[in-house]
Amino acid sequence: MSKTQIDYRELLEGLGQKAKAAARELAEASTDAKNQALIKSAEAVRRGQNHILSENAKDMAAAEEKGLSGAMLDRLALDEGRVEAMAKGLEDIATLDDPVGTILSEIERPNGLVIQRKRVPLGVIGIIYESRPNVTADAGALCLKAGNAAILRGGSESFYSSAAILECLHEGLKQAGLPEDAVQRIRTRDRAAVGAMLRLSDYIDVIVPRGGKSLVSRITEESKIPLFKHLEGICHSYVDKDADPEMAKNIVLNAKMRRTGVCGSTETLLIDQSIADNMLPAIIDGLIDLGCEVRGDSQTCAIDSRVQKASDEDWDTEYLDSIISVCTVVDVKDAIEHIIAHSSNHTDAIITENPETAEVFLNAIDSAIVMVNASTQYADGGEFGMGAEIGISTGKLHARGPVGVEQLTSSKYLVRGTGQCRP
Amino acid sequence: MSKTQIDYRELLEGLGQKAKAAARELAEASTDAKNQALIKSAEAVRRGQNHILSENAKDMAAAEEKGLSGAMLDRLALDEGRVEAMAKGLEDIATLDDPVGTILSEIERPNGLVIQRKRVPLGVIGIIYESRPNVTADAGALCLKAGNAAILRGGSESFYSSAAILECLHEGLKQAGLPEDAVQRIRTRDRAAVGAMLRLSDYIDVIVPRGGKSLVSRITEESKIPLFKHLEGICHSYVDKDADPEMAKNIVLNAKMRRTGVCGSTETLLIDQSIADNMLPAIIDGLIDLGCEVRGDSQTCAIDSRVQKASDEDWDTEYLDSIISVCTVVDVKDAIEHIIAHSSNHTDAIITENPETAEVFLNAIDSAIVMVNASTQYADGGEFGMGAEIGISTGKLHARGPVGVEQLTSSKYLVRGTGQCRP
Repeated sequence: MSKTQIDYRELLEGLGQKAKAAARELAEASTDAKNQALIKSAEAVRRGQNHILSENAKDMAAAEEKGLSGAMLDRLALDEGRVEAMAKGLEDIATLDDPVGTILSEIERPNGLVIQRKRVPLGVIGIIYESRPNVTADAGALCLKAGNAAILRGGSESFYSSAAILECLHEGLKQAGLPEDAVQRIRTRDRAAVGAMLRLSDYIDVIVPRGGKSLVSRITEESKIPLFKHLEGICHSYVDKDADPEMAKNIVLNAKMRRTGVCGSTETLLIDQSIADNMLPAIIDGLIDLGCEVRGDSQTCAIDSRVQKASDEDWDTEYLDSIISVCTVVDVKDAIEHIIAHSSNHTDAIITENPETAEVFLNAIDSAIVMVNASTQYADGGEFGMGAEIGISTGKLHARGPVGVEQLTSSKYLVRGTGQCRP
Repeated sequence: MSKTQIDYRELLEGLGQKAKAAARELAEASTDAKNQALIKSAEAVRRGQNHILSENAKDMAAAEEKGLSGAMLDRLALDEGRVEAMAKGLEDIATLDDPVGTILSEIERPNGLVIQRKRVPLGVIGIIYESRPNVTADAGALCLKAGNAAILRGGSESFYSSAAILECLHEGLKQAGLPEDAVQRIRTRDRAAVGAMLRLSDYIDVIVPRGGKSLVSRITEESKIPLFKHLEGICHSYVDKDADPEMAKNIVLNAKMRRTGVCGSTETLLIDQSIADNMLPAIIDGLIDLGCEVRGDSQTCAIDSRVQKASDEDWDTEYLDSIISVCTVVDVKDAIEHIIAHSSNHTDAIITENPETAEVFLNAIDSAIVMVNASTQYADGGEFGMGAEIGISTGKLHARGPVGVEQLTSSKYLVRGTGQCRP
C-alpha cells in the first residue's frame, strides 16, 4: 500500500470517528435545535453571499481553464438568485415534520411485553456528488433534519464554493448548540479519497451517490457500504390504443421537453402500432417544433421523413438532451416487454382512457414510479409532497423512489417488560 | 478466468433468468395460489417423510465420516418430529397475512394527481445458509409468501436432505399452478459457486446470509448484491442499581441459559458496581448451578473465587455456549459506553425499576432491539408476532430486527392522473 493510500485511510477514519460521535448527539437532539441550526445556516448563507460568490468565481475560473462543457459550467455557477434559493431551501427543510421519534407500530403480546417500533436516524450518511455546489447545503440539511451526520464528497470543481457553503452550515450548527462535525466534507480533490471513503463501513451507514452513470457504476463496484442507488432515468411514455390523442400529445411533449436534463424526462416513446399512423404525426411535429431530434423504428420513420433510424443502442440510452427514441409496439403487453427489457426502473407511464389496460400496466411494470395519464416529469420528491429529496432511488431496498427525510431514517424495536423470561 | 469459473457464471445466470421469470409470475399470483402451494408442499413433506429421512441418512453418514462436531450433526439431523415441524411450519406461513398489494399511503396532490405507495415483492432473493436442512423449507416458503423467487444455496453437508425437501416444494408449486422455478437451489457442493452467486446483481435483489461470523464476513466482502446482514449476536443484559434483585437474577439466568446457541442469548452481563457485592453472588451462584462458566473483571472475580479472569477478547465474543462474561460499570452511562463499544447491535437489555434510567438506555442504545426488564431471548420473529422469520437483521437499512414476510417486500409508487403536465 502506498503512503498516499494510508494517509487517506487515516484521514477518512478521523472523519468517520467524528461523524459517529456527532451522530450520537444528533440522534437525541430536539426538533427545535435541528430547525434552529437550519434557520441560522440560512441566515449565514445570506450574510455570506459575497464570500460564497467570490469563492465560486475561483472555481469557475479554474473550470473554464480546464475547458469544462457549458452544461457543467452552468451546474457549477452560482449567482445571487441561486444563493437565495439555497438559503430558502434550508428554511424549507426546517418547516418539514421531524421524522425521528415517530412510533411506527405498537403491539402488546399475550405475555405482556409491549413492543414498539420507533423511527430513529440512520446514523452517518456519505454523499458523493458532482459539481453542483448547492448539494452541499441541500444534502447536508436533509441529513441533519433526519438526525444524521453527513460526510460530503463534492466534485473537485466546486471545491471552494462547497467550502464556503459548509462554513455557513457550521455557523448555523454552532448557534444551535449542535456539533459542527454533523456535516463534514473531505478536504482533498484527489479521487483516491473516494476509494478510502467507500471502505469506511465501520463508520458510514449508507452512501448516496449523486451523479452520472459512470460515477454510480464505479461506486457500486467499489463500495463496501450499502448504497441508495440513483441510477440513470431511462423513462418511457407509452401511448396506448385507447389514449386520448390530445392528452397523449400534451403529455409526451411535456414529459420529454419541459426539462431535458432531469432524470424523470422521458427518453423513449412507445406507441401502439394500430394508432401510430393516426396519432404520431402530430406528436412528432410538436417535438420537432420544440427542437427535439426524433429517432424511430421503421414504422416511425415511414410516418415522417425527418425521423432518423434508431440504433439498438438508442433503446438503452439516457439522452438527458433534446433527443427522443420512438418505438411502435403491438399492444400493452408488448410495451411492457419493451419497458422491462430497457427501463432503468425509475419512472414509466401509460397514456390510456381504458382503466383495465392502465391496471395491467401498473401491476406489470416493476419501476419505482409507475404513472397513468401524467407526465414522467412529475417524478420528483417535491411533487410527491416530500418537501425536498436527495435523489430518486431506483433500488428496491429501504428507499424506492424519491429519497426525502423519512427515507433517511431507520427504526429500532423497543421492548418493555415487567420481568418476562422466555419459557 | 478458469473454465470452472466460467461454468459457474453460466450456471448461475441460468438460474437467475429462470428466477426472474418466476418472480414476475409470483408478483401477480393470488394469495390463494401462494397459500395452496404452501399447503400442498406441507402435504408432500408429510407424504415424502421416508424419502426425506433416507436422504438425510446419506448426509449424516457423510458428515460423520468427515468428523463433524456433535453440534453440527445435531443441526443436520432430521427425524419424524423435525419433518412434521417442517410441514407445520409451511402451513403456518400459509396462515400469515399476505403483505403484497397493501396500500401503504395515499395522497391527492393539489394538481389532482393521486399518489399511492403499494407494497410489492422484492423480486429474487438469494439465501446462503449452513447445514440446517429445514431452512430449505422455511426460507423458500417465506420468500414465496411475499411473492419472491428464491435461489437457495444450502450447506454442502445437507445436499441430499435439501434436494428431497425442495422436491416437496416443487410438488406444491406445481399443484397450485405456480412456476417450480419460484424456488431453486444451486446443485453443486463447490464453494466457488457462491462467488458466482454474489456477482449476480442483474438477477438477485438481495442476499440473506444465515450462518456464522466467517460465512457472513466472507459474503460481505465479496457481494455485489445488497445483504440483509444477520451479524452475530453479542447481546448484553445490564443490571442497573435500581434493579429488582429477584427479577434481575431470573432474567439474567434466562437470557444466558434458556438456550445458549441462539443469537438472542446474552453473552455479557453488565452490573452497576454499587450493587454488585449485593446482587452478583446470587446471580453467579445461579449461573454456575446451571453449568455456566463465568468470566469476569477484577471486582467480579473478587466476589466469587469460581469466576475466571476475563480477557479483553471476552467482551467481543459471541460464545453461543454456556459461558458468560461479567463486567462491573460505574453507572448507566458507563454501561451504554461499554455496549456501544462491544455490542453487535442485535439486542441489549436493561433491568431497572427506574423509568428514567430505562428511557436513557432505550434512547442511547443503537441496536435493532432494546429491552427493559425482559430476557434478550425474546429477540425472535415469532415472539414479535411475525409468525416466522428468516433471521434477525442487525443492519439499519430496509429491515432492522426480525425479518419476516413484510420485510421481504418493497414498494412502488402508483401515480394516477387525468392528463397532468408539469408546469
